[in-house]
Amino acid sequence: MLTAEGDVDVAVVGAGPVGLAVAWRCAARGLRVVVHDPAPGSGASHVAAGMLSPVAEAYFGEHELTGLLAASAARWPGFAAELAEAAGTTFGYRTDGTLVVGLTGDDLAQARRLWSYQQGLGLPITPLRPSQLRDREPALAPRVRGGAIAPGDHQVDPRRLVAALRVAAERAGATLVTGAVDQLSDLAARVTVVAAGCHAAALTGLPIRPVKGQILRLRAPGGAPPGFRHVIRGYADGEPVYLVPRDSGEVVVGATVEERSDTQVTAGAVLRLLRAAVELVPELTEYDLVETAAGLRPGTPDNAPLIGALPGRPGVIAATGHHRHGIVLTPVTADLVAELVVTGVADALLAPFAPERFARPSRG
Amino acid sequence: MLTAEGDVDVAVVGAGPVGLAVAWRCAARGLRVVVHDPAPGSGASHVAAGMLSPVAEAYFGEHELTGLLAASAARWPGFAAELAEAAGTTFGYRTDGTLVVGLTGDDLAQARRLWSYQQGLGLPITPLRPSQLRDREPALAPRVRGGAIAPGDHQVDPRRLVAALRVAAERAGATLVTGAVDQLSDLAARVTVVAAGCHAAALTGLPIRPVKGQILRLRAPGGAPPGFRHVIRGYADGEPVYLVPRDSGEVVVGATVEERSDTQVTAGAVLRLLRAAVELVPELTEYDLVETAAGLRPGTPDNAPLIGALPGRPGVIAATGHHRHGIVLTPVTADLVAELVVTGVADALLAPFAPERFARPSRG
Repeated sequence: MLTAEGDVDVAVVGAGPVGLAVAWRCAARGLRVVVHDPAPGSGASHVAAGMLSPVAEAYFGEHELTGLLAASAARWPGFAAELAEAAGTTFGYRTDGTLVVGLTGDDLAQARRLWSYQQGLGLPITPLRPSQLRDREPALAPRVRGGAIAPGDHQVDPRRLVAALRVAAERAGATLVTGAVDQLSDLAARVTVVAAGCHAAALTGLPIRPVKGQILRLRAPGGAPPGFRHVIRGYADGEPVYLVPRDSGEVVVGATVEERSDTQVTAGAVLRLLRAAVELVPELTEYDLVETAAGLRPGTPDNAPLIGALPGRPGVIAATGHHRHGIVLTPVTADLVAELVVTGVADALLAPFAPERFARPSRG
Repeated sequence: MLTAEGDVDVAVVGAGPVGLAVAWRCAARGLRVVVHDPAPGSGASHVAAGMLSPVAEAYFGEHELTGLLAASAARWPGFAAELAEAAGTTFGYRTDGTLVVGLTGDDLAQARRLWSYQQGLGLPITPLRPSQLRDREPALAPRVRGGAIAPGDHQVDPRRLVAALRVAAERAGATLVTGAVDQLSDLAARVTVVAAGCHAAALTGLPIRPVKGQILRLRAPGGAPPGFRHVIRGYADGEPVYLVPRDSGEVVVGATVEERSDTQVTAGAVLRLLRAAVELVPELTEYDLVETAAGLRPGTPDNAPLIGALPGRPGVIAATGHHRHGIVLTPVTADLVAELVVTGVADALLAPFAPERFARPSRG
């Protein structure tokens, strides 16, 4: 079936997880959807670890964001089941939970301060003694002083997620056009959804800045699975690091958070990540180093996403600025943006994340 | 000109630096030469740093090897000039000298023990005070406790060297055949030179074992040259490391020495190399990490090369087993093997390196 430009209900700019999930949800509701991306899946998600961590990502002063993270994490089991069915494939969704650990006494104090705050919010995180930690993960270094478990903090493989979302979106009837969008006025759809990560800044004028992240991919030797099952997040001599084990044998080690816009991998970042990783899980020294990479997260002034109608641009909806939380926020973003497209009404959950919070006052 | 098999004077197995240099020298003497390699330049030289370090590589108990290293290093200036002329290209030959440094008191003691031995052999190495070291290389860490300079220890870029040797050999009339040699009897040349690195073991039965080495390539940011000119070799908290700066901005950091035959890059090796490198030259943290790689050196029971006629195999000459010294030993190997091919007589310099030292006693 050929679709003339004028027949498109929804144009989605960006074929990362958010854009593809929006396209899938909209197409599944019977809308005619076209997704535009010069290189689908090559943005921040290509470098993301895929932690679904509403608890371990709950930081001081980000109360509203924490609520959205928790709401989206709660949608993940259903979203994952539906997507696996729709795409006919799996994507590394695992529910082993997350251990938060501190290597030294200072590291533990820092971790404990954060999880006390998280407990205060009523989030599920339980302190563990060192012996309890090691019962759960014998691969942890004997030096590790203590930690906690967030049983509800799960993981997914972002690269496989994007592949599955693409299949699901296309099966639902969405069309993927491989090409760049230079300006939104080039698109003739009834509604345009901008899910273009850092590129959304140029398209919308929204205050999105690139936040560089570097990661490593290790692989357990001889095709074995990693020697630990939980996601491990920790501090090692003051250095924050996370380790995400996959069934394939892969372990993602991340990530730097740098106010830079290049994507070079630097010796210093690799050194800090490897040192912290090996201090927490010594057997990683024997793992192969199979990839080093850097990507750019779309950050906003308050580190919260931009989801909702774009002020002064009728028919344009933003779904970007997800910063470090694009994967966990994919289900709630897709569901509520599809709802907004269909009904024209924004769910109350989205109120704190409306792009208009950064609208410039109009001049005299 | 077509060359029938029977017309070949010299078949060379292996298009690494040694094989190509032998081919060049033989072809330049008017011999008809064919070089066989399934993947020219993809062996140990692809991962080699290219240090021409007869002094800094002079180790206890390797007196005869040290003599050969010094003899070959002495040939390097002339060899480099001739090759640049013949190939019409340069290959990163630099004569800035090598600094040997120790980070801690223990590291310095270890380095000093070695250079005292080297001085005892009459080799040119001069101790420097920390202030003298930093006058020469301000990029060295303030913590570095002391060191020495070996002004005659130079460097070359092995990848560019291989490319230049290939041009020179072909210009001199040698033919390169891209293909594997499974057994020497498949070759119909008058003389066969086996310069196949680790692969020579299977072809000749010589006791050559793979010795794994892992290296990193860093690059100074923004296209600048590295912040130091000398090759720096040192010990950092007991870890040996070398840093080879190139005009292109590249810095080679190496190398592990492992009794293994795989070519996986491991997290532990990258961590140890980066940590030692950054401890000696802190500015390297800001450099890009552009490559990690592992290769296999051809080692022998006494770590000295195998150069000369193969016992019991008339017309077969070995030129392999160069272990960590393939680049520095390229000129002397090529010159003396070409001489052996032409005259049938081995230079006295080669006596300690004759393959027959590992000949098995014949049975019954």
